[in-house]
Amino acid sequence: MKYKSLAIIFSTVLTSSICFAQTTVVEDFKKTETTQQGKEYPQVNSEGRVRVQISAPEAKKVQLDIGAVKYDLVKDDKGVWTGESAPQDEGFHYYQLNIDGASVPDPGSLYFYGASRWSSGIEVPAKDQDFYALKNVPHGEVREVTYFSKTSNSMRRCFVYTPPGYNTNDKKYPVLYLQHGGGENETGWSSQGHANLIMDNLIAEGKANPFIIVMDNGTWARPAQSAPQGAQGGRPGLPEGWADGFKNTLLNDIVPMIDANYRTLANQQNRAMAGLSMGGMQTRIITLANPEVFSHVGMFSGGSISTEDISKSPNFKDKVKLLFISYGSRELENPREGSANPKTTTEDLKKAGMNTHFYVSPQTAHEWQSWRRSLKEFAQLIFK
Amino acid sequence: MKYKSLAIIFSTVLTSSICFAQTTVVEDFKKTETTQQGKEYPQVNSEGRVRVQISAPEAKKVQLDIGAVKYDLVKDDKGVWTGESAPQDEGFHYYQLNIDGASVPDPGSLYFYGASRWSSGIEVPAKDQDFYALKNVPHGEVREVTYFSKTSNSMRRCFVYTPPGYNTNDKKYPVLYLQHGGGENETGWSSQGHANLIMDNLIAEGKANPFIIVMDNGTWARPAQSAPQGAQGGRPGLPEGWADGFKNTLLNDIVPMIDANYRTLANQQNRAMAGLSMGGMQTRIITLANPEVFSHVGMFSGGSISTEDISKSPNFKDKVKLLFISYGSRELENPREGSANPKTTTEDLKKAGMNTHFYVSPQTAHEWQSWRRSLKEFAQLIFK
Repeated sequence: MKYKSLAIIFSTVLTSSICFAQTTVVEDFKKTETTQQGKEYPQVNSEGRVRVQISAPEAKKVQLDIGAVKYDLVKDDKGVWTGESAPQDEGFHYYQLNIDGASVPDPGSLYFYGASRWSSGIEVPAKDQDFYALKNVPHGEVREVTYFSKTSNSMRRCFVYTPPGYNTNDKKYPVLYLQHGGGENETGWSSQGHANLIMDNLIAEGKANPFIIVMDNGTWARPAQSAPQGAQGGRPGLPEGWADGFKNTLLNDIVPMIDANYRTLANQQNRAMAGLSMGGMQTRIITLANPEVFSHVGMFSGGSISTEDISKSPNFKDKVKLLFISYGSRELENPREGSANPKTTTEDLKKAGMNTHFYVSPQTAHEWQSWRRSLKEFAQLIFK
Repeated sequence: MKYKSLAIIFSTVLTSSICFAQTTVVEDFKKTETTQQGKEYPQVNSEGRVRVQISAPEAKKVQLDIGAVKYDLVKDDKGVWTGESAPQDEGFHYYQLNIDGASVPDPGSLYFYGASRWSSGIEVPAKDQDFYALKNVPHGEVREVTYFSKTSNSMRRCFVYTPPGYNTNDKKYPVLYLQHGGGENETGWSSQGHANLIMDNLIAEGKANPFIIVMDNGTWARPAQSAPQGAQGGRPGLPEGWADGFKNTLLNDIVPMIDANYRTLANQQNRAMAGLSMGGMQTRIITLANPEVFSHVGMFSGGSISTEDISKSPNFKDKVKLLFISYGSRELENPREGSANPKTTTEDLKKAGMNTHFYVSPQTAHEWQSWRRSLKEFAQLIFK
């Protein structure tokens, strides 16, 4: 009995201390790069907690909605609501506020396209944030390009990164076609993805060869129309025609438009495709079907390619110089039931003679920090 | 008595009919180009009324805040609030929602920078909207350019419009430096201003000679710092140093950076400056002090230049080939007390021998439709 009581006491102490640790908040909150200039909130602390604040004197309930969890805010005597989330992973996260049942963007944050809407976003400073920091190094440009697509019979928009020096030399460059994920659009990679800053910094350090990056919209719905949901060409929940529709536009409209308007090395050896999540799945389908077009392939949190896949696409193994597969470490801890292990699949392909590279982003999930790091790794391996 | 009673009856009928006219809403609301893809609201009707809708089941009061007026929304039995504004001028307007006292962006709209914040915006279709419509004509690019400024010892960002064909020819082009208004930023002219589409359409019709447009941030506060309010270099309420700070950056950092990186005709004859509101006032101060740098000057809703002004800047009259002054018609109906009549001032300058042009945008106020039209007119007059 004596020992049992002691055990209960110890257990109680332990439980209390865990509860205490869960509710103590380190008071070192600071504004972050996604806080609007002139606004005081949102802020982030050293634990990665996100604190928001909003004046809503007549509201009954205000919540912070981040990472699929809603956190209650507390009202002061002036009608200002304040509250914070549990610690978030390093990097970028979408979020919204909920005011008496209305889901709205935080008026203090910058806005980013994700979850099929313009949404608030928050940057949680990361230990390795230096690789996408804005520095006084030579910078490339991000160009908004408007063009007519015969495939969709509509005007379309993409963003084109040209590397530092492009305007003042006459060199020709390789091209990477880089795709966003489901519910995102052509703005993602140069906004929350910081693809341009990642490249500028790598090039300044001599770690990557300069290349052009084309970021287009892989969501297959015509401009000004809503995206129908369906299973055509993909799994249920993905926009209808997301693979085939974009494949035709990419090969028949975008690649020829880019080769006609930019100083590209317009051949397979100097053309890469990569994408995150849905964009990775599109990369898989498009490059397996067209290994004569792309020589370097990257899939970030977007599946893998198996020996069975390449047995159906015999030229893929010979034509593709690099296959890069990556995931956030937390994604691999919780694999989807029935899904192949991408590491094993990629190792099998290496054994079969392909140049493969498998990368795991530490302590991140299906989120932009995984994809920024993936681009940083991929960019150092291609066109060499 | 008989006549008096009749008069009362007539008066009552008249009053009722006015009330009726005020509250009847034409039910032809449609989504507009500033409604997010996949969202049903905001909408605009043929009268220019803006209708918004938001689900807020627990809210007590929801309002549409547009044109400095708050309109109450009405809740249905599912907790969805709907309501509309009085008719708005044709063109673009900033707005917000107010939910139980919280001022927030509408989750259904696109977002634009104005009033020193990222805000909801609504496009009210205009009779003359064709001149800034997205058409299948050759398009220029809008380039996001990152550069180091010695003047501010910081990294800065501007947007550069290069005309159609720039990438595939080796011509040199004139340059227009084009500034936003107070509380706006470097994104305004290519986003809600549609400067790029205005130029693409004019060039396609042969109405304007192609030129480069540089759109930088004239709000003199370093990145990531809030803009202090003060009277230095301008009237109270304008950001401190807005004229001098930007003048130094423009002349010492931006113009040399543009001439070094783009195929410019790098001389006074081929360099213009224009701006709206605060940007017009900056244009006035900077070009009066530096007529050896700019040959074409445009001020849109941003004051005028008097014979007294040019008597203090003797080279201005000889060096400047065109002075363009414009206003929205509603601005001229309600002039600020004690302010000069810009039409008279401009006519006096013409009499004194300067090539001046005065333009009035019909049925618009201090708003973007006035400035889109001003750019359209100005662009057809310069570099010819």
